[in-house]
Amino acid sequence: MPDLILHEYSWSGNCYKIRLTASLLGIKLKDRLEYDVLKGETRTPEYLSKVNANGRIPVLQIGEDTFLPESGAACHYLADGTNLLPTDRLQRAQVLQWMFFEQYSFEPYAGTLRFWLAKRDLESLSQEQKESIPEKRKQGDAALAIMNEHLSTRMFFVAEKLTVADVALYAYTHVAPEGGFDLSIFPHVQAWCERIARQPGYVAVN
Amino acid sequence: MPDLILHEYSWSGNCYKIRLTASLLGIKLKDRLEYDVLKGETRTPEYLSKVNANGRIPVLQIGEDTFLPESGAACHYLADGTNLLPTDRLQRAQVLQWMFFEQYSFEPYAGTLRFWLAKRDLESLSQEQKESIPEKRKQGDAALAIMNEHLSTRMFFVAEKLTVADVALYAYTHVAPEGGFDLSIFPHVQAWCERIARQPGYVAVN
Repeated sequence: MPDLILHEYSWSGNCYKIRLTASLLGIKLKDRLEYDVLKGETRTPEYLSKVNANGRIPVLQIGEDTFLPESGAACHYLADGTNLLPTDRLQRAQVLQWMFFEQYSFEPYAGTLRFWLAKRDLESLSQEQKESIPEKRKQGDAALAIMNEHLSTRMFFVAEKLTVADVALYAYTHVAPEGGFDLSIFPHVQAWCERIARQPGYVAVN
Repeated sequence: MPDLILHEYSWSGNCYKIRLTASLLGIKLKDRLEYDVLKGETRTPEYLSKVNANGRIPVLQIGEDTFLPESGAACHYLADGTNLLPTDRLQRAQVLQWMFFEQYSFEPYAGTLRFWLAKRDLESLSQEQKESIPEKRKQGDAALAIMNEHLSTRMFFVAEKLTVADVALYAYTHVAPEGGFDLSIFPHVQAWCERIARQPGYVAVN
């Protein structure tokens, strides 16, 4: 595999997903480059033209010239051909089902509230942002309820083994309390979080 | 392949993606079941318990008992092992990069504005929804600008051939004018839309 460099804001759950996937697979990142998103360091002309035109982190740099944005794509690249991604066609699609679910129905709520409540202070939010908190709370709780129900009869999300879908969902789930979510009402999610943290190669977010 | 049934709201771009992928591949859907999302038909107890706990369409039913939500996952399932999905590890990840980009950075803006402006009427929107229109317009235009720049030197999004990433992005792009977007300022996007519409097996959204 070519040298891998992670362009990241290390506090971000989306960046952590890539580090956790790599660590579980025993893949070494050659370097990690930190950008302060609060200071707009991923919106500079240099970053937009070279690293990611979308101005977001994370980006996985593969070799000299290849820059792969989107945490799900980077995790899939690392996991492809390993035991974190099934070879069965349906199971591969089910892994993606949960990864798309995470990005569409969970991260915009749990990730945003964590960022607002743990990284910024309430005073600095706009009125519109403040007013959107109850709806984001409701949507995040709805996603956690779906995950909890799914995990009530399973150890992992797909194929009864650890896959990159678990990694993708774990990143923002286990730190959801930092965004004001109460995981104690989702006991199957809590047990699954503990299961992930016991995996060989596990690394914590910080 | 087992029998395939598409649970859909056929006007939705996310549902169209699956029909277009299947049609380009010459895969026949055994049935299409229509749900009126405006009437809450995907939020009934039956739908939530049997088809999709997340209460969304589309869902691709595979055989009797397997229900696959998330348009990206369903398209990937159909495309896996075909010429719409590269076999190269990096190219597969790049296909997903654009599919995640579409769901996170484009569809929530272009898809929502199309729904609001073409399917509901302005009067029926809440004050909060109305006030969010300029920001959604800005974000949708930003995504189109990224796509336009990427396509300025390419025929297709990945690997210089048609992939399921093109299908995923095409669905809401070619109907973006229904949400008030002006595609004439994105000529490379327009040319790419015309290219897609000329592909063998192409079907229109309606």
